[in-house]
Amino acid sequence: MSAGLEAPEASIRAGRRQGAPAERIRVAVVGATGYAGAELVRILARHPAVELVGLGGRGRNAEPLETVHPHLAASHQTISDLTPEADAVFLALPHGVAVERVPAILATGATVIDLGPDFRLKDPADYPRWYGFEHARPDLLGGAVYGLPELHRAELIALARSAIRIVASPGCYATASILALAPLARAALIGDVVIDAKSGVSGAGRDTKPELMFGEVNESVRAYGIGGHRHVAEIEQEVGLAAQAAGSASGTAAGNPVASSAARAIDFLPHLIPMTRGILAAAHVRPAHPTSQAELDELFAGAYAREPFVSIVANPPSTKHVTGSNEARIHVSYDPRTARILVIAVIDNLVKGAAGQAVQAFNLVHGQAETMGLEQLPLGP
Amino acid sequence: MSAGLEAPEASIRAGRRQGAPAERIRVAVVGATGYAGAELVRILARHPAVELVGLGGRGRNAEPLETVHPHLAASHQTISDLTPEADAVFLALPHGVAVERVPAILATGATVIDLGPDFRLKDPADYPRWYGFEHARPDLLGGAVYGLPELHRAELIALARSAIRIVASPGCYATASILALAPLARAALIGDVVIDAKSGVSGAGRDTKPELMFGEVNESVRAYGIGGHRHVAEIEQEVGLAAQAAGSASGTAAGNPVASSAARAIDFLPHLIPMTRGILAAAHVRPAHPTSQAELDELFAGAYAREPFVSIVANPPSTKHVTGSNEARIHVSYDPRTARILVIAVIDNLVKGAAGQAVQAFNLVHGQAETMGLEQLPLGP
Amino acid sequence: MSAGLEAPEASIRAGRRQGAPAERIRVAVVGATGYAGAELVRILARHPAVELVGLGGRGRNAEPLETVHPHLAASHQTISDLTPEADAVFLALPHGVAVERVPAILATGATVIDLGPDFRLKDPADYPRWYGFEHARPDLLGGAVYGLPELHRAELIALARSAIRIVASPGCYATASILALAPLARAALIGDVVIDAKSGVSGAGRDTKPELMFGEVNESVRAYGIGGHRHVAEIEQEVGLAAQAAGSASGTAAGNPVASSAARAIDFLPHLIPMTRGILAAAHVRPAHPTSQAELDELFAGAYAREPFVSIVANPPSTKHVTGSNEARIHVSYDPRTARILVIAVIDNLVKGAAGQAVQAFNLVHGQAETMGLEQLPLGP
Amino acid sequence: MSAGLEAPEASIRAGRRQGAPAERIRVAVVGATGYAGAELVRILARHPAVELVGLGGRGRNAEPLETVHPHLAASHQTISDLTPEADAVFLALPHGVAVERVPAILATGATVIDLGPDFRLKDPADYPRWYGFEHARPDLLGGAVYGLPELHRAELIALARSAIRIVASPGCYATASILALAPLARAALIGDVVIDAKSGVSGAGRDTKPELMFGEVNESVRAYGIGGHRHVAEIEQEVGLAAQAAGSASGTAAGNPVASSAARAIDFLPHLIPMTRGILAAAHVRPAHPTSQAELDELFAGAYAREPFVSIVANPPSTKHVTGSNEARIHVSYDPRTARILVIAVIDNLVKGAAGQAVQAFNLVHGQAETMGLEQLPLGP
Repeated sequence: MSAGLEAPEASIRAGRRQGAPAERIRVAVVGATGYAGAELVRILARHPAVELVGLGGRGRNAEPLETVHPHLAASHQTISDLTPEADAVFLALPHGVAVERVPAILATGATVIDLGPDFRLKDPADYPRWYGFEHARPDLLGGAVYGLPELHRAELIALARSAIRIVASPGCYATASILALAPLARAALIGDVVIDAKSGVSGAGRDTKPELMFGEVNESVRAYGIGGHRHVAEIEQEVGLAAQAAGSASGTAAGNPVASSAARAIDFLPHLIPMTRGILAAAHVRPAHPTSQAELDELFAGAYAREPFVSIVANPPSTKHVTGSNEARIHVSYDPRTARILVIAVIDNLVKGAAGQAVQAFNLVHGQAETMGLEQLPLGP
Repeated sequence: MSAGLEAPEASIRAGRRQGAPAERIRVAVVGATGYAGAELVRILARHPAVELVGLGGRGRNAEPLETVHPHLAASHQTISDLTPEADAVFLALPHGVAVERVPAILATGATVIDLGPDFRLKDPADYPRWYGFEHARPDLLGGAVYGLPELHRAELIALARSAIRIVASPGCYATASILALAPLARAALIGDVVIDAKSGVSGAGRDTKPELMFGEVNESVRAYGIGGHRHVAEIEQEVGLAAQAAGSASGTAAGNPVASSAARAIDFLPHLIPMTRGILAAAHVRPAHPTSQAELDELFAGAYAREPFVSIVANPPSTKHVTGSNEARIHVSYDPRTARILVIAVIDNLVKGAAGQAVQAFNLVHGQAETMGLEQLPLGP
Repeated sequence: MSAGLEAPEASIRAGRRQGAPAERIRVAVVGATGYAGAELVRILARHPAVELVGLGGRGRNAEPLETVHPHLAASHQTISDLTPEADAVFLALPHGVAVERVPAILATGATVIDLGPDFRLKDPADYPRWYGFEHARPDLLGGAVYGLPELHRAELIALARSAIRIVASPGCYATASILALAPLARAALIGDVVIDAKSGVSGAGRDTKPELMFGEVNESVRAYGIGGHRHVAEIEQEVGLAAQAAGSASGTAAGNPVASSAARAIDFLPHLIPMTRGILAAAHVRPAHPTSQAELDELFAGAYAREPFVSIVANPPSTKHVTGSNEARIHVSYDPRTARILVIAVIDNLVKGAAGQAVQAFNLVHGQAETMGLEQLPLGP
Repeated sequence: MSAGLEAPEASIRAGRRQGAPAERIRVAVVGATGYAGAELVRILARHPAVELVGLGGRGRNAEPLETVHPHLAASHQTISDLTPEADAVFLALPHGVAVERVPAILATGATVIDLGPDFRLKDPADYPRWYGFEHARPDLLGGAVYGLPELHRAELIALARSAIRIVASPGCYATASILALAPLARAALIGDVVIDAKSGVSGAGRDTKPELMFGEVNESVRAYGIGGHRHVAEIEQEVGLAAQAAGSASGTAAGNPVASSAARAIDFLPHLIPMTRGILAAAHVRPAHPTSQAELDELFAGAYAREPFVSIVANPPSTKHVTGSNEARIHVSYDPRTARILVIAVIDNLVKGAAGQAVQAFNLVHGQAETMGLEQLPLGP
């Protein structure tokens, strides 16, 4: 893993220098009928370096996209059963489906950016454990890059030179949680963690379910995924890797310091709240060694100072501050009364938590400015 | 403190037997212009044993209540600057204001049911610490009863025989949190606690504030009160008392096992979510000694089996399940992976978290069936 | 049709005098799994004169009601495939289903209170036209009473003496619209009408539909039912009858003055707005002859002065003012600039627009105080 | 008035040809602390041809914009008491304030784009009548162009050659209403009009008011502005002009056919619904002469076929279909039963209803492609 902190400026400058490329990158989206797929179209249809050459959707052929997503009428796209030839293919599919499609796409030489979990976990044994299926291509897991640019920028850039290019775009909860914890993991500060997260309903996808009807969701909040939401797997993996990297850098003993025992496992609890977009993750951390507000401020400022999409904020952020944008905002505080660290991270679950982040990684892999197509300011109020 | 577990049946039966009393109890509400005050009127105006003899509100005289609360027009009440003579006076006032008014009310022989914090904390030093004011009448704190019937039923009933009767009705977050933790405290199971709570905006009261405008709250979630929401004080007090009671009962050493050190202080984080009513508190507990789902089920079932307003539910509850009612629903689970206990409690913040609970305590003090006036089923969807 | 304006006091007094009856009326609800059915249980389970003897629901047997409606756990009801013997049976069924069930229920001597449309329309030809089915028992239509007590109180009371008792409880939009227009119809003031109505989503029922998912409804408004929502049929029928009654009373020519031509047909447009409960109907009326604010005030005050559930309000009402209650609030204004009358009516679509109104009619038919079981104040905020 | 139907292609092509201009147009926003001001910054900060040179706000100096609008942090703007020198100044000010500021701005040679009503009405007498103030500069009203490009494109383009350039950007309700009615007005089809409109709360601005608190707005709908919302003035003016233009074109008699009498005055009723963004206007029109669905389809298709931001849709549109974009969607239907025309128009009140439309007009006046800076697709869900 890269230190995750190398400067993004180089890639941004590179992209900006070249302006809109003479030849656009041909891009396809498979799984365009869901919310994440729609968000990919919203962003990619206005991406200056991209030509959107095709959309794939379940059992539809030559259907205008607007019949499924009326708000995207002005994109003038149609959905097809076929996957068109493209330089990069974004997949927004249920877990277990992408892994079946990927080999054929790789064979065309295209980059795969998978928004599902099929390539996020390094250990094949995690798939039966967390997702209930045996991974058909464990050989591909090692080469896939976890597409969180703030932690894996160098690897994403390096992927450009690889014949097989798979970006495993992070889960929405995982994005908020890992960004919140990574600076602490690197400083070996994580002693015990509770992550209590709140999400808008779009995170549950677009399938029609009784518990997602307006009458059930409005004016209500509930927890779900008790005893182990699937995103725990990637959170523990990435936070563990960040801690290990720091450990090996400092010469201390190896071994995944997170999740190595029940005492270190991450307690993650998601809630569904009555809103459409947005995730707020609150990480309550018992520090492994004494710390202070000053140390935390320095750690987080250092970790994200040069990141184009992450900012450290002095006041507790609202999810509304980032709606429709690729921004993440993080607030860190130390409470001397309880001797605990609190880190709060907010993102738009469909942008930085899904489609926006996928485009950010795509930009890196395809040599574009990292922020290209993602400069929209948040939509408020 | 009472064991908190004596049977409510006696009081319920007593009240039911007598039916609607020949002579109604004269009741006044001071602070009727806020949300908690309105909720008191909603309940008390339909309480079979109560005659609502007067409402007090800031700088208003003989104003129909419906000009302030249009939904209460059918209560045919008016607000006055004067506090009428009454057998019981409910106070819904800002902190620090009730303590100034209470002595005069006590002098009339009336019961005081204070929905604010002025009489909740036993230690006078907690007032400057948590609320920023010196308590003018620390002598009254010892006699006031913390009005959570599930923990202090016997004391509330006993209050009927006292010349000075002050019920300190619990805070909304505190109600959900204490109900969630008390069974664990009594079993000395609380090793380390994070309470992550979510509230509708009515909990913030009815004062006009920019951050409570619809445009700011809707489609957003944010944490607040970071570093110490005031309800922590009463949560730590009551959970500590429950633990102590159990400790002394079992002959073990005394001392408040909660909050005696930073390591034991409760980490409480509230969030504002885009809904009007409801609180969900999720208590993440690291047990002080090994436990199991079976033990937890037995503990919680035992603690609340005979409670008229508390039920233990097998599925994670939604706040919508209790809207408009005095119910609390609690879900407890043990996660072997993380070796943590999770307790989720939901209430309507304005009913069980404020006005309903105050009426429940009033019923006990005034010899009525505990559930009288509170039988409404929740309003769903 | 009765003048619709006879005093409700007699019936209210009668009921109050007798208190809770020694023997409770046995009541069953068929169709308890939907929203209207749940609301019936919420009200009837707390009705002092009622014993809820059974609930019927599609394909369920001995299932606790709380598995379908968790908020109703405290009602301790179970759903059954059988319809139990009862003195009165409430039906909350899809259109066309009730008419098949009613004959068997009538044969037991029970009162039928149908919350669906199967007995609302007097003209059998209206069923194929508006609902797409031939009515199997047109012979029963004449004897059924349209259960809007404000217009048909005498008929509902008279129904008690009838061997066959069918109450056709009005639709939610129809209730708000007819209450808004009846005083104008009786005064022959209706020249041309546009009703523009807004409803919360609970009016669409509890069936799972993509367009009712939270993600689609929230932060959005749309019109539907363009070119003829089914409630138009009963609105035109009842407004026409009110106009006729007035016409015949004043000796003028008969004939339904409403809907007799395209020029007189009611233009009704419903909208779905992002809330759960509540209907607001705005009736824009071109008066048939000159009028004034003073005349309108007198008309509406006179029409509803003694109604227990209808009030005329000086300020435009919010649906929130009546949430959870059986109240209707009406605002009438005359605009000299446009020479138009505007009438705004708000109700809770599930209470006065469904279950509450059905119970109000039931009370009249079964000799109870009209308001019994319906005294709850609205839930605000 | 222009025919309003000349081709936008020329201007779009012109703008596209030149790409991002070598020298950016210097733009200032006065009134940046409100919602419309924020939306202007959101759009202008990403406009390829614009340099945002300054923001003005009440009583603030050198304050970062993000303290007022946290979501705009990435715009890196500060608010100042001074109005900087600029080529174009957007004003988002309360009515009556802009007229005082405009002369000084005009003196610098800058274009004024006023988002308030101070220059929308041609008849000075309308200001005391509708807005309660005497207009200080009636001499400027004639030259100001009502900034609805779909009706006044030629005038906006021509304004570029004028020494004094004032664009009076339309009101939000007016935009939706005029777009809905203009094709009918031109065809002399408007016999009688009821416009029933529904708006999210952001239309009420950002000032803190009790009735706009979340607890009051959520789960509720209410009408307001009864007896004459101010936007009626501009709706009647523009619809009247459209009718007149058509009348004079066809040689028929002149005179404002709208609002010339009570019988022709527009009955406009706005509602506040529980959402943040979006307006839906439903225009119920009694046609002045017989018409048909086919004629209406042709009229509307013809009127807007070449408009970049207006589309005619076959299904009733939701406001969510246009959230965050400059789009307007219109649905027209003829109901033979009532012999009425229904036109439904939806816009985002802050974009096409305010800031977006202002930028669209600015583009035309300053020789840019009409769509520049406004290409964002709507944000859904």
